[in-house]
Amino acid sequence: MTNKTNATWGGRFAEQTDEFVAAFTASVEFDKRLALEDIQGSLAHAQMLFEINILDQNEHTLIVQGLEKIKQEIENDEFVWQVALEDVHMNIERRLTDLIGLAGKKLHTARSRNDQVATDIRLYLRRELDEIRQLLARLSRNVVSLAEAEIETIMPGFTHLQVAQPISFAHHLLAWYEMLKRDDGRLADCRKRLNYSPLGSAALAGTTYPINRQRTADLLGFDAPCANSLDAVSDRDFAIEFCAAAAIMQMHLSRFAEELIVWNSAFFQFVELPDRFCTGSSIMPQKKNPDVAELVRGKAGRVYGHLFSLLTLMKSQALAYNKDNQEDKEPLFDTIDTIKACLRAFADMLPNLCANREKMRHAAQAGFSTATDLADYLVRRGVAFRDAHEIVGKAVKIALEQNKALDALTISEFQSLSDNIDEDVYQILTVEGSVAARNHFGGTAPEQVAQAIAIAKTELDARITDR
Amino acid sequence: MTNKTNATWGGRFAEQTDEFVAAFTASVEFDKRLALEDIQGSLAHAQMLFEINILDQNEHTLIVQGLEKIKQEIENDEFVWQVALEDVHMNIERRLTDLIGLAGKKLHTARSRNDQVATDIRLYLRRELDEIRQLLARLSRNVVSLAEAEIETIMPGFTHLQVAQPISFAHHLLAWYEMLKRDDGRLADCRKRLNYSPLGSAALAGTTYPINRQRTADLLGFDAPCANSLDAVSDRDFAIEFCAAAAIMQMHLSRFAEELIVWNSAFFQFVELPDRFCTGSSIMPQKKNPDVAELVRGKAGRVYGHLFSLLTLMKSQALAYNKDNQEDKEPLFDTIDTIKACLRAFADMLPNLCANREKMRHAAQAGFSTATDLADYLVRRGVAFRDAHEIVGKAVKIALEQNKALDALTISEFQSLSDNIDEDVYQILTVEGSVAARNHFGGTAPEQVAQAIAIAKTELDARITDR
Amino acid sequence: MTNKTNATWGGRFAEQTDEFVAAFTASVEFDKRLALEDIQGSLAHAQMLFEINILDQNEHTLIVQGLEKIKQEIENDEFVWQVALEDVHMNIERRLTDLIGLAGKKLHTARSRNDQVATDIRLYLRRELDEIRQLLARLSRNVVSLAEAEIETIMPGFTHLQVAQPISFAHHLLAWYEMLKRDDGRLADCRKRLNYSPLGSAALAGTTYPINRQRTADLLGFDAPCANSLDAVSDRDFAIEFCAAAAIMQMHLSRFAEELIVWNSAFFQFVELPDRFCTGSSIMPQKKNPDVAELVRGKAGRVYGHLFSLLTLMKSQALAYNKDNQEDKEPLFDTIDTIKACLRAFADMLPNLCANREKMRHAAQAGFSTATDLADYLVRRGVAFRDAHEIVGKAVKIALEQNKALDALTISEFQSLSDNIDEDVYQILTVEGSVAARNHFGGTAPEQVAQAIAIAKTELDARITDR
Amino acid sequence: MTNKTNATWGGRFAEQTDEFVAAFTASVEFDKRLALEDIQGSLAHAQMLFEINILDQNEHTLIVQGLEKIKQEIENDEFVWQVALEDVHMNIERRLTDLIGLAGKKLHTARSRNDQVATDIRLYLRRELDEIRQLLARLSRNVVSLAEAEIETIMPGFTHLQVAQPISFAHHLLAWYEMLKRDDGRLADCRKRLNYSPLGSAALAGTTYPINRQRTADLLGFDAPCANSLDAVSDRDFAIEFCAAAAIMQMHLSRFAEELIVWNSAFFQFVELPDRFCTGSSIMPQKKNPDVAELVRGKAGRVYGHLFSLLTLMKSQALAYNKDNQEDKEPLFDTIDTIKACLRAFADMLPNLCANREKMRHAAQAGFSTATDLADYLVRRGVAFRDAHEIVGKAVKIALEQNKALDALTISEFQSLSDNIDEDVYQILTVEGSVAARNHFGGTAPEQVAQAIAIAKTELDARITDR
Repeated sequence: MTNKTNATWGGRFAEQTDEFVAAFTASVEFDKRLALEDIQGSLAHAQMLFEINILDQNEHTLIVQGLEKIKQEIENDEFVWQVALEDVHMNIERRLTDLIGLAGKKLHTARSRNDQVATDIRLYLRRELDEIRQLLARLSRNVVSLAEAEIETIMPGFTHLQVAQPISFAHHLLAWYEMLKRDDGRLADCRKRLNYSPLGSAALAGTTYPINRQRTADLLGFDAPCANSLDAVSDRDFAIEFCAAAAIMQMHLSRFAEELIVWNSAFFQFVELPDRFCTGSSIMPQKKNPDVAELVRGKAGRVYGHLFSLLTLMKSQALAYNKDNQEDKEPLFDTIDTIKACLRAFADMLPNLCANREKMRHAAQAGFSTATDLADYLVRRGVAFRDAHEIVGKAVKIALEQNKALDALTISEFQSLSDNIDEDVYQILTVEGSVAARNHFGGTAPEQVAQAIAIAKTELDARITDR
Repeated sequence: MTNKTNATWGGRFAEQTDEFVAAFTASVEFDKRLALEDIQGSLAHAQMLFEINILDQNEHTLIVQGLEKIKQEIENDEFVWQVALEDVHMNIERRLTDLIGLAGKKLHTARSRNDQVATDIRLYLRRELDEIRQLLARLSRNVVSLAEAEIETIMPGFTHLQVAQPISFAHHLLAWYEMLKRDDGRLADCRKRLNYSPLGSAALAGTTYPINRQRTADLLGFDAPCANSLDAVSDRDFAIEFCAAAAIMQMHLSRFAEELIVWNSAFFQFVELPDRFCTGSSIMPQKKNPDVAELVRGKAGRVYGHLFSLLTLMKSQALAYNKDNQEDKEPLFDTIDTIKACLRAFADMLPNLCANREKMRHAAQAGFSTATDLADYLVRRGVAFRDAHEIVGKAVKIALEQNKALDALTISEFQSLSDNIDEDVYQILTVEGSVAARNHFGGTAPEQVAQAIAIAKTELDARITDR
Repeated sequence: MTNKTNATWGGRFAEQTDEFVAAFTASVEFDKRLALEDIQGSLAHAQMLFEINILDQNEHTLIVQGLEKIKQEIENDEFVWQVALEDVHMNIERRLTDLIGLAGKKLHTARSRNDQVATDIRLYLRRELDEIRQLLARLSRNVVSLAEAEIETIMPGFTHLQVAQPISFAHHLLAWYEMLKRDDGRLADCRKRLNYSPLGSAALAGTTYPINRQRTADLLGFDAPCANSLDAVSDRDFAIEFCAAAAIMQMHLSRFAEELIVWNSAFFQFVELPDRFCTGSSIMPQKKNPDVAELVRGKAGRVYGHLFSLLTLMKSQALAYNKDNQEDKEPLFDTIDTIKACLRAFADMLPNLCANREKMRHAAQAGFSTATDLADYLVRRGVAFRDAHEIVGKAVKIALEQNKALDALTISEFQSLSDNIDEDVYQILTVEGSVAARNHFGGTAPEQVAQAIAIAKTELDARITDR
Repeated sequence: MTNKTNATWGGRFAEQTDEFVAAFTASVEFDKRLALEDIQGSLAHAQMLFEINILDQNEHTLIVQGLEKIKQEIENDEFVWQVALEDVHMNIERRLTDLIGLAGKKLHTARSRNDQVATDIRLYLRRELDEIRQLLARLSRNVVSLAEAEIETIMPGFTHLQVAQPISFAHHLLAWYEMLKRDDGRLADCRKRLNYSPLGSAALAGTTYPINRQRTADLLGFDAPCANSLDAVSDRDFAIEFCAAAAIMQMHLSRFAEELIVWNSAFFQFVELPDRFCTGSSIMPQKKNPDVAELVRGKAGRVYGHLFSLLTLMKSQALAYNKDNQEDKEPLFDTIDTIKACLRAFADMLPNLCANREKMRHAAQAGFSTATDLADYLVRRGVAFRDAHEIVGKAVKIALEQNKALDALTISEFQSLSDNIDEDVYQILTVEGSVAARNHFGGTAPEQVAQAIAIAKTELDARITDR
């Protein structure tokens, strides 16, 4: 490039920008991703400038035509991005001036790159948020569909990765549904808080032109203009709040992933993942690795890291805009890409997940999983809970010593521990009996699970209609 | 302690717990902070058990009396906490049993420590959240009050810590108000999502007793019971979401703090901090250090760290409850303590902050802060913005070379740069003119700022009525 | 307390410190942990002041006696800490002055709290580092001892939590040894870099007294004085570097923990943890939860969080000392406590870990773990590796379809896939054969493992002698 | 692509990889950066295979020629990377086979992608580490050169951003030098621990071929082979340790950056940054923003974030290799790029930094910066330090009230506070006197600073010779 001093602001400078510095400080390599939002913002700004007579009819028409042409060039990948022009804004503005002359230069009246970029990012993130919520809804539907087919499937419920009590597999899946539902709530709240328009805040203090900020806010689908110009250009809360919501969501996905990996191992074999979601080994031909789940688990690191990048970035920055803020984009973009890919990967995989019902049921029967039911049985017969607990503990110990299941103890063995135990104890020691007995709101009994599924479906339908 | 095996679950164990292990795994040292919420939850649970006839009238009365007595012992600091009893729940239960005998043992019917602790933390955090929002409102009110007194105070608005354009000091303060307003929104949303009752989820799958979860939810002021028992005992989203909101808030406070520190330095002297919010030096008697602001800035690290602790903690944990989760409390507690102290420190300090209006005004006049106004002046006279920008750049360069202010250039010097400049240019180069000219929603003109203050006051009034 | 303005620096202050501010800014609640190091540093400082004639013989004697008395008071828990005196330094100095009068006041000559606290923390961390390295060595020895007993124990080696190839259990344990060895190296390097004396840097610039910094450095066991006074009082690298090393170590422990939890589950049963390192459930009497391992895993969050606290704390602080730095202590102290407890817990538990050799061996035989050996067999007979891999893949597929092990395929089934396979193939398909065949440096063959153990023991012996 | 199942491991798979999954799990887009190291590793492996007769002379020659050709294709940007081939290893191997046929397939004998990628990253990071240390040395030299020119320049030393005591500007710069010196030490220690060869560890357990791991380690410049094959393929300590060292270094740079930004502000004007390292404003023509410093400060977020990505990634991963580990590369690569760019930016900028000596000196004279000297003066005349401190505090208060400097107090004013003060007090209240009086090792006296510069130069020379 012949002139390394950016013509936009070079007036007072005695020497040209160092070439390395120009590349180091330029953002166009990553902020060009905001190009369509930049044009969208400019169109709204131009419309408003026309309405308040800063642009005349002809200038406005030229600007609209010029921006539409640039949009096409970008969509067709014909646009030539120049690092020397620093950022997406100057690249587009320069091209516009090349196309339509003087009118292009007038477009920047009554705005600054500070409010422009803040507007662009909000528009961009808002669009992505909506797509992410669609993906989240798709994954949620797939979770619920799978649950619907597995209401009667009994698996061991775990605490401490130890078999605790038998549960319905559908009930386990619905725990995932609840997490995703909260994730959607957080994203909706984040969208609500971001949907204000910085446009018109100019560099930091507003502008001397009689602009109509409500009008541009309306044109761009914002709920209102940001209430304070300093805040508008220096605020990046929306990006951090989004990344925090994304981090929690990715944490949830890492938990699903962990479970899929464990369940898919040779020792559990609770589920079979479809071949096309697994990969093999270059050295061990027998391997069928749950790579998708492992990557999703690993990507928690990436998403957490980006959240902390942004928090660190903003720590103790004096107002208003500082160049540091340019660093907000890459973590945000990569967070968006990552969670979209992970949501899609899981949404695609789930309908193909095959539950190994026999293995699950068999595992639920082992491990004394109905011991709590025995304790409850004793309590219902008047034994204090803590005492019942001790009696069951002894029963488990006897069974362990004899290497047999709890329901394989003889009645006299039981009665040696407590004379409150009768023959009917064997009924409550089955896994089906145990599951069915937890029959209250939020419990694992099939009846409750079916109802929870019905509620989830209604919620999902409402969520979609909602938008 | 004579018996290191915890009597609660020791039934099947062949050997006593190692003493170091007992201390290592015990949580009572920190979770005793949940004692009052634990009792509150137990009272609701007992009421419900009584209503469904699991407790009889006499047992219920004994339990209520026993718990009330324990509450008093705790409030009077007479309660003897025992590490050997592991956690707050067992300490209270053991004391209850000592006080009232067998009925005490029945209280644990139809619940587990897993749902109990989840209930306790939510109750605790909800109460603290409400206090934090009160502190936040107090700080916000003090920001608005200070702003009200400083509408006409002109200071330099900064970008890149460089003087950019003159602004009203009140306008700057209102940027802080906006940040705090979003913080309150995030806390309100967090409260909404946490306000569900895990009670009745038992260990993970619900219970075989015919419990009424809606009833305990109502008694405890929860909006509804958690919809899925597995999720209810393994979810810590509320703690993470709270810590994320706290991290953003502390980031905001770190920005205020940075500004106070800079403004308080000998080179700015924009504000005077009251002596009683500063400390001195053991070696340099002339120092008056803005320690409160520095500590608040530094505490961003602490709050960020706790958020990251919790995210790491939950990463890839298989459902449902794991002992890892015991680690959720200390980061949460310290986050609460930290942000309460910081909010209070700033709320106390702000009414005593003394703006040095002369210094501010003088600083605003320096630094060519009205250069943008000159550019706008030119644009209004038909010069394209980008061309106007270049003309102003040259004017600044001339002024810099002669070491004088922009409005000290002669009219002929101005006219050598552009024949669009007339004598009336000197009017728009004053800081008052510059501030007043940014007269649109969100701008810095006193008229707009006064209106923003009125809106803020209405919002704050509504927020308090709301609760 | 009557006078809330600290007498140390109150000279120029017009009003007393606000009581809340006094508590908010005081550090004595946590920095009193540095008391013995503070005295140690003062003794060295006094000795040097005496040698350069700033203290006379009598003053020096009084100071030494006074400090020794205070040390005893602290050790006997008789010392009265006062928040009004801000920090550990002022508490001790005030007490000294109370005890010995004027001479006590002279002790602070030629130093400041800035260099004093920097010295204290380094002394404290150095002592803790040495203890941590001892604990690390004990854990390492226990790992090696366990390995020594399990050289011939065959278990499945995993990749992707899938059975990959049979390995020696001892070989797996030695992977842990390697991690701990690197941890020790990092701690040793951290110690090396921290072992410089800030004493004499005073507030930031050094002092006007003719002090002998080399002398105090020698007395305190430092390698040399810090080379730059500004850096000496503002540097907290040593704390961050230590926390980074601790985070990596805790990451390692979280990996061991995860493996112990998985191996301890009903589905693996590779190991049995001693009862006294487990806890039970208040509701499920059959549970024996690996709580120690779970807590260690969870504490990774805590340690990571502290590292992030410190990095955030120091981000973009202008030199030299700022009050923010007071926030360095709690994360550091809790990191030290946490890793010491975790190292001890694992060191205690490991000798009691019981390997279930039969389960391990059986698991190794399943899962086609010798498939790679078949591939290598083919390669040795001239088949290109990639082709061999495909042949084995087909063999695995056939075996899967028939639900049998690889060595249960008939010779004609093998030969239908490749005519390079002969009857001798069955020898290389045993797990013992597979393990023994990996007989090179770092491989899993018993011969190599025995040698690795011998090397580890030598290294551990050298490490202990070293100190 | 026609066949989406990767031919490397497709043998046992019934269906093709899903196209989205193929892209989601592929790493070639980022790991192709390891291409030259992959070839380097393959050449060493081939040489060793030839020496142990697994490859014959002809095969070896073909492989060497093929790899050299591929290297050229990559360097000339002619190589066609295929996502369908997953990663850098398979892309190169496939191309090799296309070029030389069967011999190419034999190259993968006795290794796996697990040890291959571990070897590649270590080689890559080692090379980058060496470059980073060169950049660090260059920046350090420039710091020292600048210091050399500014030994006599007096500036205010700050604590709490308050003027504390006068110091030499060179002394301040040398504090930066000390930080960078520790950074180099950490990088050197990291290099030492990473310089072991994983090659030959194969998938996790070693290989059945009689390989010579010492030979490949030697060929690749490693100090030795990794001692345990499981550890070798699952360890990523070196990447985390590097990122931790980078985070500390970037924290240091953020501190320099903060100081440059503050010093460059209109209120300080201590330094002038060259135009070509600054950028302008699109709206405020008078601005000259210290963008480079602001970006460097902001990039602390990025580097911290990557460290936490990696720590999170590795948390509680069971051994040995899991697919999660693929996520190690992007954070590492971006950390490398970021710190190289920041080091270069600062190294380039520093020689052009212009100190405004007059402003600095003037600022040092203000703010009662010699108050400590007055206290020391009193102590030397027999006043106890704490009493002297109080006297000076009162003197400062009087001066503040009269709005004058300390040395403008009259002798009678001084004597009203203490009769230990004589006329000679005015000598010690000059900034030159104050600086010169701190004349001990590590102090700010010009004599000491000159000596520190001499030592730094010797250290830097040694560091360069060393390599």
